[in-house]
Amino acid sequence: MSVKRGITLYSAPTPNGFKVAVLLEELKSVYDFDYKVRPVNVAKGEQKDPWFIAINPNGRIPAIVDHSRNDFVVFETAAILIYLQQHYDTTNKFGWDPKENPDEYSEMLQWIFFAHGGVGPMQGQLNHFRNAASEVVPYALNRYLDEVKRLYSVLDIRLNQDRDYLAGPGRGMYSIADMNVLPWLRIREYSGLDNLDEWPNVKRWCENTLSRDAWEVAGNVGRVGDTATLYRVGCAA
Amino acid sequence: MSVKRGITLYSAPTPNGFKVAVLLEELKSVYDFDYKVRPVNVAKGEQKDPWFIAINPNGRIPAIVDHSRNDFVVFETAAILIYLQQHYDTTNKFGWDPKENPDEYSEMLQWIFFAHGGVGPMQGQLNHFRNAASEVVPYALNRYLDEVKRLYSVLDIRLNQDRDYLAGPGRGMYSIADMNVLPWLRIREYSGLDNLDEWPNVKRWCENTLSRDAWEVAGNVGRVGDTATLYRVGCAA
Repeated sequence: MSVKRGITLYSAPTPNGFKVAVLLEELKSVYDFDYKVRPVNVAKGEQKDPWFIAINPNGRIPAIVDHSRNDFVVFETAAILIYLQQHYDTTNKFGWDPKENPDEYSEMLQWIFFAHGGVGPMQGQLNHFRNAASEVVPYALNRYLDEVKRLYSVLDIRLNQDRDYLAGPGRGMYSIADMNVLPWLRIREYSGLDNLDEWPNVKRWCENTLSRDAWEVAGNVGRVGDTATLYRVGCAA
Repeated sequence: MSVKRGITLYSAPTPNGFKVAVLLEELKSVYDFDYKVRPVNVAKGEQKDPWFIAINPNGRIPAIVDHSRNDFVVFETAAILIYLQQHYDTTNKFGWDPKENPDEYSEMLQWIFFAHGGVGPMQGQLNHFRNAASEVVPYALNRYLDEVKRLYSVLDIRLNQDRDYLAGPGRGMYSIADMNVLPWLRIREYSGLDNLDEWPNVKRWCENTLSRDAWEVAGNVGRVGDTATLYRVGCAA
């Protein structure tokens, strides 16, 4: 009798799908850990199929099923990052323990929520009005471009405090707080931003992080059909 | 020599400010706990003043300073709810311990993130285009009204599973997951929704929760000037 183990990732190569792939690849690089991928064809709307709605009633990728823990289901990108870090980053290389380091844990959550309620939805709206809307809406294009730039400026203020990463003491520690937001900056060109020169600290942070091996590998996770060429990615101009 | 203790809440009577006031009032009703309020006059843009940017670089209410824990600062509404629950809800009446009940904790986070990245920003955009935009943009009005209705339907699916609350086993337990989203439904009229009749489970959940004493009291927290009359609130038509 075999016991099902490991993680299944349901995903596609969007910024949110990419975030979870990055953490899974980082975990693989450090621990005896592996996962399998079930690509979800978002171009064909597979995330709205009943089998996936049973996993995530919101009909959005990514989601995971943890076979090692009674097929526990987690949806919402940031909740997945926190879950995986808590259960599988056993030496806290990519985050902090909520009880042992409650202040660092809270700081990490603050920047995760900043991205989850700010950068993500606002850059998502910008992308919609630039690349998907059925009509040109100048008011909305300006609104969301201005808001994305403002949010990048908040990140720049944070990283200007002699920091390399968003959370943690001193210069900070690379953590799921960084993984949760940089995938949006990585597709800045798709969002109509020619470069990151206005935000020199953000640019430095982006370049330092995107050069990590896990980020290279994660870019290929969950690809189906022609979605591989959806975005040109990178921090540099 | 006196030791500074307790929480200072920086807030205004918006949905996000209200969420934290609800939890603080719930904690007051159960524990030997108190807090003080420094209203932030958002109508005058006080949240962009340098003294407040030093607390929250994003320039948004609410934020808290915890004088009992070295003036630790927490911004981002949901991060504040999680912080307060972890440190001050010592018998876990309004949430779950991340180590002792990791599955319930994750479930709670999943619904918190669902609201923080979905209901909050999308209903916020709807409110902007209905009540604040300098021009009428039919495309955006339709887009955000449709999306808010879709998100309410996701909540209705969740609550249809013989549940009273979003997270927890069985019928669920009233928790910060509920406090984090119902303040948006409470101002549905301001968002142009005449009633909640399309979502009967949501309506039941909303009515049951809004009748709590803490929700009555919290409505007055952080009011300055004429913001008291900003919204008409309630679940019923």
